[in-house]
Amino acid sequence: MSKTIPYKIYLEESELPKQWYNVRADMKNKPAPLLNPATMQPMTVEELSDVFCTELAKQELDDQTAYIDIPQEILDFYKMYRPAPLVRAYCLEKALGTPAKIYYKFEGNNTSGSHKLNSAIAQAYYAKQQGLKGVTTETGAGQWGTALSMACAYLGLDCQVYMVKCSYEQKPFRREVMRTYGANVTPSPSETTEIGRKILEEFPGTSGSLGCAISEAVEAAQKQEGYRYVLGSVLTQVLLHQSIIGLEAMAACDKYDIKPDIIIGCAGGGSNLGGLISPFMGRKLRGEADYEFIAVEPASCPSLTRGKYVYDFCDTGKVCPLAKMYTLGSGFIPSASHAGGLRYHGMSSVVSQLYDDGLMSARSVEQTSVFAAAQQFARVEGILPAPESSHAIRVAIDEAMKCKETGEEKTILFGLTGTGYFDMMSYQKFNDGVMGDYIPTDDEIEKSLAKLPKVE
Amino acid sequence: MSKTIPYKIYLEESELPKQWYNVRADMKNKPAPLLNPATMQPMTVEELSDVFCTELAKQELDDQTAYIDIPQEILDFYKMYRPAPLVRAYCLEKALGTPAKIYYKFEGNNTSGSHKLNSAIAQAYYAKQQGLKGVTTETGAGQWGTALSMACAYLGLDCQVYMVKCSYEQKPFRREVMRTYGANVTPSPSETTEIGRKILEEFPGTSGSLGCAISEAVEAAQKQEGYRYVLGSVLTQVLLHQSIIGLEAMAACDKYDIKPDIIIGCAGGGSNLGGLISPFMGRKLRGEADYEFIAVEPASCPSLTRGKYVYDFCDTGKVCPLAKMYTLGSGFIPSASHAGGLRYHGMSSVVSQLYDDGLMSARSVEQTSVFAAAQQFARVEGILPAPESSHAIRVAIDEAMKCKETGEEKTILFGLTGTGYFDMMSYQKFNDGVMGDYIPTDDEIEKSLAKLPKVE
Repeated sequence: MSKTIPYKIYLEESELPKQWYNVRADMKNKPAPLLNPATMQPMTVEELSDVFCTELAKQELDDQTAYIDIPQEILDFYKMYRPAPLVRAYCLEKALGTPAKIYYKFEGNNTSGSHKLNSAIAQAYYAKQQGLKGVTTETGAGQWGTALSMACAYLGLDCQVYMVKCSYEQKPFRREVMRTYGANVTPSPSETTEIGRKILEEFPGTSGSLGCAISEAVEAAQKQEGYRYVLGSVLTQVLLHQSIIGLEAMAACDKYDIKPDIIIGCAGGGSNLGGLISPFMGRKLRGEADYEFIAVEPASCPSLTRGKYVYDFCDTGKVCPLAKMYTLGSGFIPSASHAGGLRYHGMSSVVSQLYDDGLMSARSVEQTSVFAAAQQFARVEGILPAPESSHAIRVAIDEAMKCKETGEEKTILFGLTGTGYFDMMSYQKFNDGVMGDYIPTDDEIEKSLAKLPKVE
Repeated sequence: MSKTIPYKIYLEESELPKQWYNVRADMKNKPAPLLNPATMQPMTVEELSDVFCTELAKQELDDQTAYIDIPQEILDFYKMYRPAPLVRAYCLEKALGTPAKIYYKFEGNNTSGSHKLNSAIAQAYYAKQQGLKGVTTETGAGQWGTALSMACAYLGLDCQVYMVKCSYEQKPFRREVMRTYGANVTPSPSETTEIGRKILEEFPGTSGSLGCAISEAVEAAQKQEGYRYVLGSVLTQVLLHQSIIGLEAMAACDKYDIKPDIIIGCAGGGSNLGGLISPFMGRKLRGEADYEFIAVEPASCPSLTRGKYVYDFCDTGKVCPLAKMYTLGSGFIPSASHAGGLRYHGMSSVVSQLYDDGLMSARSVEQTSVFAAAQQFARVEGILPAPESSHAIRVAIDEAMKCKETGEEKTILFGLTGTGYFDMMSYQKFNDGVMGDYIPTDDEIEKSLAKLPKVE
């Protein structure tokens, strides 16, 4: 007899995962190694340690250890906002009239507004352990910067955020949240770094870019004694920390005997998607269960569905290591899509390899249909979703409607990564009916891919 | 043996309260009746039903029934965002180095960002039950308007919000949240009502006031077939619905054998404070337990600590019934304090009577010290609190610091009513060091009180 499923499943504190899960350990085809841009040879822990904390550099390269203990101080921090609930979308199911059962793992119940905090606290913790004074990072939409500010405030670590200038000006409230948590927020490009000054000289009045902000943050870390650079997505260490999402979701499913048929996540750099699916993918890789995984990306930045699986630079400034990944080319400039968190030219090497191995599928969706899904969801489920998260909602609704046609009672699980409180400018465009869609032409993508670095 | 207290106590769905608690039933001295402004006689259910839904008019006047069943549809809605957690502030305790045990009931985990949703769904439900087409209301800071929009979207009811023009312009994102939930938001004063047109003619270019917005909302409800007016605070029906806060908090305390010594809530119109303390006050009134209750109000609008306990108008437009309450006079214009939700000239008649009977105390605090507490709290507990809620944080920290001096291990419980995501303009002023304090002079208050209505 199956238990009655409550609206929200909260694990007990004692049921919280105490280890992260490293899906690379169970992958037959491992993700390709990061390459040193100077030598084109695989990066070593020593080389990576110049930029990242040593412990994080080790995690980045470890593709053998399946389970890694979560330090007690991180577990204590997690308890402030975790467990995140696994929600049964009873109201959405009813509104759709679908026989499908829909669940979502909600990661928005913390001030950073997203799942980013899961990795921010881990990265800040290892920096603190290493005796560092502080960390530097860049932020675009601002969720990552906020999360890192929170983690650093908690640990008493200095936090320097380079915020893309147009965001800094257009999202003053995001900036104030970071300042409230004591972070030092600098609009990028700035006069505080060499690269910043150079860019300002060359392009006076530029509103900045993520690529430039990364370069400034890396330079700032390297120029200050006791500082390292940290990153909120793409890296395998980030996916490792984010596995907490999937582990909790799996524990909640197991507790109530819920067996998802389809697992859906939005995908930008892959931090949420990779974290959500990892433990389930582990079961699939070990032959213990089967699931259909769907990555959802914006049609305006379709790295999995229209990109190429090759080595590419992770940043536009080409200062970071090269990664083998599905990419549109590091020079690809996504249109001003409102899902800022999904505007990345490439995809995590772990997700890329799983996708290339046919272990998961991908789908791209257009912005206006994403906001239509967001609004529909908000009105019946109460939560106002972030534009990024709403990509997953779109496909979850599509799949549920297919079930309505076929009569199948599939169980759908999707990741609701965050809330949209700081995205109301985009909602306003949608509410006013002036939001557009943009899909790059084949020609644009080909031109960008033509400039890929040459790697043997 | 007492159980280990987790960071967050979530009741099981089966443990959720199924009845609201009406503290008036246990009060020896009942709150004085509402008076009809035309006759100066106590309002009847029939008279109140012209403006409010009949069931709500009944609840407003019922001071005998201790427990009132929560309809199933409201219980289902509550399950979308309740139970709200009772949080043990381990990190704050540690940061303060206090022997006190601090708990807070967190009501900010829903899109309206506050406890307002608890009453919004109830009021919308009874409107729907009565076969109405929609409801009208006013909103200042915007939390109530958002909550009502969410409730109406869920029930398929039309929602018309008159938003004070300066808020409408300064808080465009609040407005967009309401629009996303399908509400019709009109800046007040507007051309859509007689009173609005009159005010615009008299004061062209005015940025509006809450008093004017109330008058417009009441007029709009009375002029449209199938509409009623609803209100987010002050009324006893609202305190009844908000008792869910205290009932859940009490159930969580009882489950873990937590015995609060001090219970603290911020107080504007009294909706949160009254809801939080009601069930505990019931125990005190019945002689089953004792607690110290502290209402915290802004020094800029000190109705309990510096007002008079008399009959006064509830609105500046003087269209609503008169209530006996602690008041600064309905003509009192609070300074532009940033805690918009606490800028009300009077106090719920229930809270006023309890305070006048010496069953609780009150304290007023200054804005800059409130934001200092908010920032301190945010950095260690992760949650970015609303300015209103931060009044309670201020006094909770003060009481915990007293315990540090005396060595007493008191248990402190306070209500954290909401989040500050839409209040970053105020945080910015604090972060920039340009926030001021304002305390009205005795003369100002006396002048305002001199204009009180004459009631025998």
